[in-house]
Amino acid sequence: MSVITIIGAGMMGSAMSVPASDNGYEVRLVGTHLDRDIIEFIKKKHIHPKMNRILPDCVKPYQIEELETAIMGADLIIGGVSSFGVDWFAEKVLPLLPDMLPVLLVTKGLQDTPDGELISFPKLLASKLPGRKLPLNAIGGPCNSYELADRRHSAVTFCGDDPIILDKLRNMLETSYYHISLSTDVMGVECAVALKNAYALCVSLAIGLIEQQEGIGCNEAYNPQAAIFGQSVREMISLLKVFGGGEENIVLGAGDLFVTVFGGRTRKLGILLGRGLSFNEAIEELENVTLESVVIAARISKVLHKLEEAGKVSMNEFPLMSHLDAIINKSSKVDIPWQSFETKMF
Amino acid sequence: MSVITIIGAGMMGSAMSVPASDNGYEVRLVGTHLDRDIIEFIKKKHIHPKMNRILPDCVKPYQIEELETAIMGADLIIGGVSSFGVDWFAEKVLPLLPDMLPVLLVTKGLQDTPDGELISFPKLLASKLPGRKLPLNAIGGPCNSYELADRRHSAVTFCGDDPIILDKLRNMLETSYYHISLSTDVMGVECAVALKNAYALCVSLAIGLIEQQEGIGCNEAYNPQAAIFGQSVREMISLLKVFGGGEENIVLGAGDLFVTVFGGRTRKLGILLGRGLSFNEAIEELENVTLESVVIAARISKVLHKLEEAGKVSMNEFPLMSHLDAIINKSSKVDIPWQSFETKMF
Repeated sequence: MSVITIIGAGMMGSAMSVPASDNGYEVRLVGTHLDRDIIEFIKKKHIHPKMNRILPDCVKPYQIEELETAIMGADLIIGGVSSFGVDWFAEKVLPLLPDMLPVLLVTKGLQDTPDGELISFPKLLASKLPGRKLPLNAIGGPCNSYELADRRHSAVTFCGDDPIILDKLRNMLETSYYHISLSTDVMGVECAVALKNAYALCVSLAIGLIEQQEGIGCNEAYNPQAAIFGQSVREMISLLKVFGGGEENIVLGAGDLFVTVFGGRTRKLGILLGRGLSFNEAIEELENVTLESVVIAARISKVLHKLEEAGKVSMNEFPLMSHLDAIINKSSKVDIPWQSFETKMF
Repeated sequence: MSVITIIGAGMMGSAMSVPASDNGYEVRLVGTHLDRDIIEFIKKKHIHPKMNRILPDCVKPYQIEELETAIMGADLIIGGVSSFGVDWFAEKVLPLLPDMLPVLLVTKGLQDTPDGELISFPKLLASKLPGRKLPLNAIGGPCNSYELADRRHSAVTFCGDDPIILDKLRNMLETSYYHISLSTDVMGVECAVALKNAYALCVSLAIGLIEQQEGIGCNEAYNPQAAIFGQSVREMISLLKVFGGGEENIVLGAGDLFVTVFGGRTRKLGILLGRGLSFNEAIEELENVTLESVVIAARISKVLHKLEEAGKVSMNEFPLMSHLDAIINKSSKVDIPWQSFETKMF
């Protein structure tokens, strides 16, 4: 039986066991040191305690000490860590993998370098392993883990450098409900899916803002959300160009923005900020959790400021991102720059 | 006092009285022959009975017989009819207007011509009045009437041929909450905002489809909706190119698609179809109402078929629109062509 080993037993990593098992693979699910209780629970009940779903029969849970056993004979490694676990994954997992064993990351995001560049996680990981031949790929696109685990139709994009490996990965994981596009534009895909996190936070501001004006519990504010959604799409297209990704990835970015606006802690943070809380107050209310949306907004702003200093862009082209930067880094209160959304196409 | 006359007392036309009155205009709201009861009600209570909102003090209601009085001395005519009232507007209203009096249509949509072209409503109206000099403009962008009436932030685009008139219209109607972009790409703007109606219907199919599988009342299906949303953005960008509109209008189209998915009868129709009803059954359940989304989908499909016959496009490039065409015109059951959404970017 062929084997897929998932390392990181968070929700998205674990949800990947569903298409993998439907395609007949033995699935080994390895928890990180942070997932000890999750793996313990799965070993006892075969239920993922956070996702609250029974896992497919073929899933075998492993604690981190059993990592090497879990890797042995695997045909594919799925990196199931969040962006905060990427360094750990590079340091502890990658060195154990044989050359040419493909890796597919569920991790979405971008990292800024000391030189003021933004790089994708596959590129970041490759840079940490000079001389090694590990085909590093990543998944982008709108897919939340619960719905994937429930086999709802989900459209994603696998990106990586090698079309042949991408085709192979698609053959391994495509099912009647998991639809996979392929792209060698790694920066384009990763940029689009990272950006939507930051912009989803912006769209959510509108909900809190209206609640502040009309009272909590008023119906949702679609006009203001849509105004910010449109501006987000505009800025995402521009940022794709700035960072060297293909513009057509806005299809991914817009779809992913749509799904991200509906839930999770990024939305909660946006609503709290919109209601008038300062960034620190809002983060405190969210029990000081570190959000990927905040991290990515900070990284992008940092790189944009450097590009502006070098005369390559103007922050004025990105009024929403600039405002988000001010909210996060300068304790600014929410004051959406509506007028700057206005354009003239003559 | 300067005067803005709104002709058509539906929701969007009537909502335009709010920014107009905030900018100090006398607003004359004229009902069509279909709006008789609305105007009667407003004359008695100064409340719009469908929108259920008190109208600004400066709004003066007029029945259709008082049309000529209401037009006299107006600085701007706002055409407040739906796409089904455009012919009536061309026939009964436009001939009464003096040359150079600007007209601003809230009507969104496109009309197919016997030659197999799609034209915007401003162009359609102009074609019906050869030799007359009426500056015809239209409003696009994500804005629902309730929220505009409640002075929620809304970002729209005014389009027309003449930049000077567009600037003037913006000066007349822009407020602290009504944000106006301007564009002379009339086809681009109208195409984007018409397309989103058809594609909003497609996105809603996903909700009904999941209800059919998991039971009505299951939580909403964001992954499938987002997959269709992304594909909609892809097809909308392609169709903008086909019909000669600027691609950058996807910013409008995506924002407008976002807001349209959340409500109204198009969403209801999509959900009913997704649950497995045939088009005729679903329309019957909606009391045989004629929906703009259905009309626009039929028009676009018709024109695309003609373009395909002429070898200019292939319907395969538009799998969602093709499927919608089959649902509406060939009684096909919903069977989303998920696999055709998959792309390879190598």
